[in-house]
Amino acid sequence: MKVDGVHTRTIWLNDDGWSVEVIDQTCLPHRFATRRLERVEDAALAISDMIVRGAPLIGATAAYGLALAMRADASDLNLANSTRMLLGTRPTAINLHWVVERLRDVLGRAPAQRRCELAYEQARQICDEDVAINQAIGRHGLALIEEHRRKRASGAVNILTHCNAGWLATVDWGTALAPVYMAHDAGIDVHVWVEETRPRNQGAGLTAWELGHHGVPHTVIVDSAGAHLMQRGRVDLCMTGTDRTTATGDVCNKIGTYLKALAARDNGVPFYVALPGPSIDWRIDDGIEGIPIEERDPQEVTTVVGRSPSGELTAVQITPDACAAANFAFDVTPARLVTALITERGVCPATPAGLRSLYGQPAGGIGEKALSG
Amino acid sequence: MKVDGVHTRTIWLNDDGWSVEVIDQTCLPHRFATRRLERVEDAALAISDMIVRGAPLIGATAAYGLALAMRADASDLNLANSTRMLLGTRPTAINLHWVVERLRDVLGRAPAQRRCELAYEQARQICDEDVAINQAIGRHGLALIEEHRRKRASGAVNILTHCNAGWLATVDWGTALAPVYMAHDAGIDVHVWVEETRPRNQGAGLTAWELGHHGVPHTVIVDSAGAHLMQRGRVDLCMTGTDRTTATGDVCNKIGTYLKALAARDNGVPFYVALPGPSIDWRIDDGIEGIPIEERDPQEVTTVVGRSPSGELTAVQITPDACAAANFAFDVTPARLVTALITERGVCPATPAGLRSLYGQPAGGIGEKALSG
Repeated sequence: MKVDGVHTRTIWLNDDGWSVEVIDQTCLPHRFATRRLERVEDAALAISDMIVRGAPLIGATAAYGLALAMRADASDLNLANSTRMLLGTRPTAINLHWVVERLRDVLGRAPAQRRCELAYEQARQICDEDVAINQAIGRHGLALIEEHRRKRASGAVNILTHCNAGWLATVDWGTALAPVYMAHDAGIDVHVWVEETRPRNQGAGLTAWELGHHGVPHTVIVDSAGAHLMQRGRVDLCMTGTDRTTATGDVCNKIGTYLKALAARDNGVPFYVALPGPSIDWRIDDGIEGIPIEERDPQEVTTVVGRSPSGELTAVQITPDACAAANFAFDVTPARLVTALITERGVCPATPAGLRSLYGQPAGGIGEKALSG
Repeated sequence: MKVDGVHTRTIWLNDDGWSVEVIDQTCLPHRFATRRLERVEDAALAISDMIVRGAPLIGATAAYGLALAMRADASDLNLANSTRMLLGTRPTAINLHWVVERLRDVLGRAPAQRRCELAYEQARQICDEDVAINQAIGRHGLALIEEHRRKRASGAVNILTHCNAGWLATVDWGTALAPVYMAHDAGIDVHVWVEETRPRNQGAGLTAWELGHHGVPHTVIVDSAGAHLMQRGRVDLCMTGTDRTTATGDVCNKIGTYLKALAARDNGVPFYVALPGPSIDWRIDDGIEGIPIEERDPQEVTTVVGRSPSGELTAVQITPDACAAANFAFDVTPARLVTALITERGVCPATPAGLRSLYGQPAGGIGEKALSG
């Protein structure tokens, strides 16, 4: 999407043809900066330090990370070590697993001298696939937004979203926000309630930034306010992304998503989850039992990073000194609370049958790749 | 309760016998400071700027504010003006209304030369009543915590709370935290999950501070994390306060309370609300229709105040420049989601019959005073 009028992706190859450039998302919304990745360690750090984040973009960065690894040393040992390093960065997003396993599979079968070229080719392909998937999600989601527009007598269609599932979470377009961008571009009057999404404020920082750059009307609220707005009839639909979706339609997304799904049900507001096929984990039936929930540094809770009056990025402490804190990064929304899943293959109920109707039986599609690793 | 080992209330008369001292809660948890109130304007500002907050403490501060007003000028005109000024500070807490109306009633019937003395007497009485009420709430709530302790095979009783309904929200003891303090003092192993409570972080700042000073084990989490903990069986009960309770048991409390009540119901976790009789608004049956929800400055959402690395209280901006934000301070939790109300007169269902069983029919008790104004 556009940054100051220039079409930009979140990750791209530099003109040198081998080093990788990513938008440094830790500087947003205050400063637009990019980071150059030259080694697999740079890619791993970019993921674990959340310079890049969002399940699809994590996958794309891991793919280029393996390409950088193969450029340096295409041996079996380095392939194994680099794979392990990348898989250890963040535990929840399944895209990371299927991308790394897909590349390990493809590269492992190739002779060492071909691995570097193959890895770059795969990484480019994964990025282009992601863009195509998100555009398809956008088209299917747009039809839902159009339905809601027809239901309204007047005024904007109010969409509530949590965290950032916009283009910054992917290579381009986004998942949950792709339908919003397409609706806005089609001249539909949409307004987005953006939840700030503590502790890292990806809503306040990233979603508000990218919606603003694209000209989509939006209002930032604290994470607690979404339910109040639903209770007062000020939300037409909720739309979020997911970091991992089970074969039964359970959705693992940024902490706080489950609460908003509960509020949506209590107020008769549809709760849609947008997802690319690669975020489906066909091996898991019960999201609460089966999906590992990342616990991150408690300092993300005890401090808040923002821009100080003097213009510096500053972390301010909000708790007493030496206060205990816990930082759960994701939660699981049971399928029963999800109105429908919006995928690149169409919209389906959040049920095993719903997903099978789009992806085949047994699990087909891209997600299947995860099974082969 | 204790601050560095010294028993302290949140509001008291200075040794001069007329000026009023309050803890400046905007400096917590980073610095313990107090503020001297000499005029009714000081009291009004202390309430609207949230130097004092919490429904019972707002009421107590308003009472002393009227005493300061009468000391300066005990005329009918000044009584009317001061009353209006105090009522205009914050719209949601009903305590403010009943206190101001109670004093307007008492003072209005007295000759001007007696009003100053009467007002100070009333203010002192309101403070002492609040302490007695909270101790009674604590005893009734303690019995509930003991029940949960008996249900556990081992380990701490895990209590989740939102915002600050501790002693800092009252004159002393607190409402939702009074049972916690009494349980801790009685040697019961309790642990409190403290929700930070954006936008003003009264949980991270005030609740964590006062629990820490009293030695009660606690862990701060973001507001979105409570539901995840309930889903994983890590919360035995929820306990919150309320700024206004309807005659039917609807509860208006800090934004985010409703969400946690939804999560509690979805996970079979009891959701208790502690309240003093004066927080009951007997005139309102439907909380969603009837209770005005304060909208505060959006800057409380777009910035976060905390202590910078150099030790200064600093507001950092977390949104892009010129980003729209909305700041709803409270929400309404429907009575159907509340397991029980804990009052100074005992524990009752959140129903009209439940409240009447404790407060008489029609509305009796202190809350009735609100009707007479």
